[in-house]
This record gives sequence, structure tokens and C-alpha cells, in this order.
Amino acid sequence: MMTLNEKFKALEAENAPGQELRQELGDINTIMHGEKLEGSFVDFSHGDVNAFTPTPGASKTWMKGFDLGGEQAYTEYRGATKIREGLASRLAIFTGSSILAHDELIITPGTQGALFLALGSVVEAGEKVAVIEPDYFANRKLVKYFGGLVIPIPLSYQDSLSKSGPDLKILEEAFKQGTKTLVFSTPNNPTGVVYSKDTINAISELAVQYNITVIVDQLYSRLLYSDETYTHLRACKKVPKNIITIMGPSKTESLSGFRLGVAFGTASIIDRMERLQAIVSLRAAGYNQAVLNGWFKEPSGWMDERISLHEAIRDDLLDVFNQAGLLTATPQAGSYLFPSIPSLDINLKSFIQLLRYQASVIVTPGSEFGPTTVNSIRLNFSQDHIKAVAAAKRIVEMFKRYKK
Amino acid sequence: MMTLNEKFKALEAENAPGQELRQELGDINTIMHGEKLEGSFVDFSHGDVNAFTPTPGASKTWMKGFDLGGEQAYTEYRGATKIREGLASRLAIFTGSSILAHDELIITPGTQGALFLALGSVVEAGEKVAVIEPDYFANRKLVKYFGGLVIPIPLSYQDSLSKSGPDLKILEEAFKQGTKTLVFSTPNNPTGVVYSKDTINAISELAVQYNITVIVDQLYSRLLYSDETYTHLRACKKVPKNIITIMGPSKTESLSGFRLGVAFGTASIIDRMERLQAIVSLRAAGYNQAVLNGWFKEPSGWMDERISLHEAIRDDLLDVFNQAGLLTATPQAGSYLFPSIPSLDINLKSFIQLLRYQASVIVTPGSEFGPTTVNSIRLNFSQDHIKAVAAAKRIVEMFKRYKK
Repeated sequence: MMTLNEKFKALEAENAPGQELRQELGDINTIMHGEKLEGSFVDFSHGDVNAFTPTPGASKTWMKGFDLGGEQAYTEYRGATKIREGLASRLAIFTGSSILAHDELIITPGTQGALFLALGSVVEAGEKVAVIEPDYFANRKLVKYFGGLVIPIPLSYQDSLSKSGPDLKILEEAFKQGTKTLVFSTPNNPTGVVYSKDTINAISELAVQYNITVIVDQLYSRLLYSDETYTHLRACKKVPKNIITIMGPSKTESLSGFRLGVAFGTASIIDRMERLQAIVSLRAAGYNQAVLNGWFKEPSGWMDERISLHEAIRDDLLDVFNQAGLLTATPQAGSYLFPSIPSLDINLKSFIQLLRYQASVIVTPGSEFGPTTVNSIRLNFSQDHIKAVAAAKRIVEMFKRYKK
Repeated sequence: MMTLNEKFKALEAENAPGQELRQELGDINTIMHGEKLEGSFVDFSHGDVNAFTPTPGASKTWMKGFDLGGEQAYTEYRGATKIREGLASRLAIFTGSSILAHDELIITPGTQGALFLALGSVVEAGEKVAVIEPDYFANRKLVKYFGGLVIPIPLSYQDSLSKSGPDLKILEEAFKQGTKTLVFSTPNNPTGVVYSKDTINAISELAVQYNITVIVDQLYSRLLYSDETYTHLRACKKVPKNIITIMGPSKTESLSGFRLGVAFGTASIIDRMERLQAIVSLRAAGYNQAVLNGWFKEPSGWMDERISLHEAIRDDLLDVFNQAGLLTATPQAGSYLFPSIPSLDINLKSFIQLLRYQASVIVTPGSEFGPTTVNSIRLNFSQDHIKAVAAAKRIVEMFKRYKK
């Protein structure tokens, strides 16, 4: 068993998105080539909610919750009944399978909260958990924190789309060798790969066959680009007995400042998640929960416009990186780009610090997402379009300065 | 080591305050004596924020945070720098000892969040943790959840005030026997006992002597009644090397719907708490953090009035219970009453269900606060004054109907 010291060592957060403020830059001048690059500061570590603003009416919906008073301040730990009822019905339509509002859904403090509660409810100490690499950085940390053993499953994402996805042979082998749980995101964070229908069906069948608990993080499933299709695991023909789907309005809808997420699925796991929530922070902030009344009820056309604006940024940034020879998979959904930065004459950590200091650009190191992607950087391109393109060009210019 | 099943068994939350909605009442009619009692429904499981409304200007302060946009949505995990700076200075004045805003303070999702993060940062599996009985119900649950061993320390609270407090001999013996951590609340939840200056000094000295980590929950320390004095452990002459103080605006200030708390103290523990927060739910909801800008800056006279209104309710309820012979300690602070309900001819669980069904009163069973107080009930009397008194009289009437 890990000691507390080892656990917290595994939780190092210095390079996590948003924590850059706490880094000391040290003697960075001694390794800097050339002058600083002019341009507006762009923080690609997360979306810019000033560029893509919260869903229309979010603050008014919040105020209605505040005005409701005690009823909204003190909800059940799993969230207010009425709000869960509305969500259950809208999320059932979106995902293609019914949800019991009373038993099968919990409102959480963000999708991070949902992941913590879900993994905390199913990961037994010493047990094997299949984790995709690369995938959302917290997945590995959470499994380790709960004492589980990370069983890595490689994800292809730089090949043609038809070949992208997790290695199903390795996944099945992991299941055969006693893995009990699978956690993954689709659309994948950081690559933007959407698992194909065939892949999702195969995962579902394997999970049924080997009695695997599946935690599927669908945070970006609404931000789907032209001609892409999305398959919800929970609506497959064969669905595992233990499955939790996680979503939230923090990304596409820019409501991250409210810390809201939902998890829905197997009632016994939702029940455990609520018990854990009761000692973690009681409930998602009561007044904030009211904002979910506007979720999946955005004004007509709003979501289409938001998607097409992101698609336009995606295409421009892909052009910038591809022209410079920086291999970058085309995201099918979401707002992450994950270019490779090969052959630098400094290490990637220093390069990223120089990006911040010399080029006014913050990006997240690929090492956060798994041990196989240490030469990549992640950009959340939900940003002002013009500034984002200029910042991407600065990244390319910096690459030219520091490549071998 | 506990299995996951055992852990979640220990986390049963059915009787926790606010979860009464999820209880099935079953065939309660078969044990009911007499008719239902008329009167307005009163939920004593938590304060009524419609009776005692949030601090003036809370929603306006929130809106300023929302209008700030991205800067307020995505703060450091430990909370926005500027807000921490203001808090550190105001909390230093209140508690009588300085706080470094950058290193020694974290904003959390409620004080529950602060307790979770603090105990999660210091409780090593298998290690002994001193827990006061009775005390806030989550303390024991948290220690067990993190794999610690609860070492119970009895609290006197029904004797004269001069004798109230934890048993310091048993506490020192626990320290001698290898206990590493002490967690307690003062004012005590559920009894309203404020630890005296002598007690706090003694605890502090023992903690220094035995190198104990101390987590002190001061959630109710602002709601202090006439002629009472409060001693902050962190301002003692000898202060333990590892100490975390927890406060929040959820109670006296009625801001629970925002889920805000703070923890301040030893930098290395705060650092761990932030790492844990990063995987638990990233941060306290960004926009909500802005509401802390108004904390400890309430309008002149507001706090005094709030305290005197609570004191008047306290006194009336004490009269009701004392006249009926239901032993109830006089709370020195906070808004909890903890009367004993002796000699019923049904068990206390059934009595509490009948209170809800027959008398329209929700209370919390004393068993939530420790194994020694199974014959008590807890009332949060931050309620409409008239309704609260009427509800207390119904409790007394119910006692008369069901006593042996």
C-alpha cells in the first residue's frame, strides 16, 4: 500500500492546467534564444470564457436559484429533485437511453467531481484499472490515489481516422488478466479522437463479457464537428451492468465557473457516489445547481454557431502546425489540439516555460496525459480566434528557434 | 485494511441532516399515538436561510465575480489570489495571528470540503486520530474513510460550564499511546460548548509536547453569545507545528448555498490540500469565491443583530425544553441545541420519524454525533423565531405521548 507521502507525490499538480502561476521560472534568461516575441498573451491551458461566453441567460438562471432561497441552498446531496428530473429527461434524449431521476443521476461539483466520486466508488485498493494513454490527466492520478493499479491501454490518434482508437486487443488482454474497471474519455482529451461506433460496441461487448465497470467521460460530446458521428456507450445493444456516464456544462457551454457536472447510470454506484459526496463537500453549490435548468435548452441555433466558430479556429490552427511540420491529429470534437514538438535542443519543460516567458503562450505538457506523449503539448483552442492563430504562429516560431 | 464495501457501509448517510427526503417512512401509522399535531413545518436539520437571509449584498458581490469572467472562473486550485489576500488579512485580525495569503490559506467547497481535504492530507492509513464525542458527524466518518483509527475523547457538556470540555487526561493518554492527529470543533457541534481559554491552552501545549497535528473547526466562532469569550488555538503562546484552522460563511452568514469555506495554517498541509482539491473538484466554484470579498466586511451592526436574534431564540427554546425536564446544555455559541430525550417506549429512530410525520418537525438523531449520545436530538435553531418555539413545544408534546 502507498504511504500518504507517496500518494501526494503522485498528485503533483505543478504542471496541471491553471497552476502555472505557482511555478518559479528561475534563471530562464540564461537559456533564452533571441528576443521576446510580441503578441497578446494566450492561455491555452483552458478555454477563454471571455472569448466564448457562458450560455445566454446563465446568470439570470442562477439568480432565480438564489431567489428561491433555502430550498435551493440545501438540496439533497445528489442535487435538487426538480432539477434532476429535468436533466434526466433531457440527458436521456441526448444519450439515447432512459435515466431514472431519483436513483440514477447525481449532480456533482464539476465533471472533475463526478470522476472523483465515480472512481472513489468503484476502485478497490490493489485492483487493476484500465486507463487509456493519452487521456485526461486526472484519470491516472485518481486511480493511484484510490490505491488502484493503472493498466495502460494505448490509444492511436496520429494515424488515419479509421485506425484511431484504443488498442482493443490489449484491452481484452487486460480484462482477461483481472482488470475490473475501465475509465476513458470520448471525445478523448487531449487528442479530440471520437471513439467510433464499432469501437464503442466492441468495448461494450467486452465489458459485458468480462463484467467490467465502465466510467465514460463524455464531457465534450456536444462539441462535435461537421460530418462526425457520436456513439453513446450507454445506448448500445449490450450495456455493462455497471456503467457511469459523466458530462457537464463547463466546456462547450463555458459554465466552468459554476463547477457543475452530472453522472448517471447504475443506481448502486450513484448511491455510493452520493455517500462519498456527503463527506467530500455535501453537494454541488446549491444556487449554482439552478443553472442546470438551462442546460440542453440553449436558444435555437446557439450550439450550431458555437460549434462552427470552434471548427474555424481548429482548421486555422491545424494549418499553422501542419505547415510547420508539427504532426497534429485532427480533433473530431472538443477544443483540444495535441501537436508533437519533436527534436528540441532543450527539454520540453524548459520549452514550455520559454513559451510562457518569451512568447506569452501557456500550454500544457503532454506528460500530464500519459508517459507516451512526453513530446506533445496540449492547447485548448476555445479562444479568441485571431489571438489564438497569432499565438500558434509564435509556438511555431519558438519551435524553429529551439529545434536541434 | 477496510474493503470498499466496509468503507461505504461506514459512510451511511440516510440519517444525515438534509437527507430525510430519501427515507421511507413505512408503516408508521401502526405505532402512532393520537392525531397529528397542527403547526408549520420546521426543518431543524439545518438553518433556515429564508428566516435568516444571506449577508446583505451577497448576490451583488457574486454578480461582480461573474462579470469578471475568465479570471474569476478559472482561479488557482487554492482560490483567487486577490481574494485570498483580503481574507488572509481579515482572518488574521479575527484569529489573532498572521496568515501568509500565498502559502497558508486555501479556499474550499464549504467547510465540509476543508475538513475532507485537511484530514485527507494528514491521516495515514492505520494511524490513530483523536475524535471528540460528541462532535460533528463527519469527523468520525472522514477518519474511517481515510483508514484512520478513531480514538474517542469524551466531551462534558451537561455539567456546569466550568466543567464542560474534553477530557484532557484521556486526550493526553491517547497522545502517549501514539495518536498523531486531533480533530475537533469549537464551538462544539452539536452542543454549543465553547472550549475555554484554559482548555485551548492545555490542548495546544499537549499538541506541541507530543507533536500532534491539530485540525480545529471554528465554523461557529463568530456567533458568540453575551458574555462569552472565544480562544483561538492558533494564537496561543505555544502553537503546534502542524495546525489547520477551518472556517466558513455557511452558518452565521447564511451563505451555505455558495459552498464556501477556508482552511489556513501550516503551509505544507495547505499544499497537500490543494493537490487533493485538484483531483476532487479542481476549486471552489470560481464565481462563488467572489462572495468571500464581502466576508468579515458585513455592514456595521449586522452581526450584533444576528447574534442577539439567535440568542433570543436560544433562550426561548431552552425554557421550553427545561420546563419539560428535557436536559439541554446552554449553547455558548452557534445555533445548535442538543436536548436529551430519555425513556421513550419506542426507539429514538422511530420517535424522530414520528416527529416528522406526526408533528411536522425534522431533527437529527444524536447517534450521528457519536455512540454516547444516542438519546439526544440536535436542533439547528437558526429558524423563524415563532415557528421554532411552536415546533419545540410539539417536540415536548410528542415526548409526553411516547415516554414510558
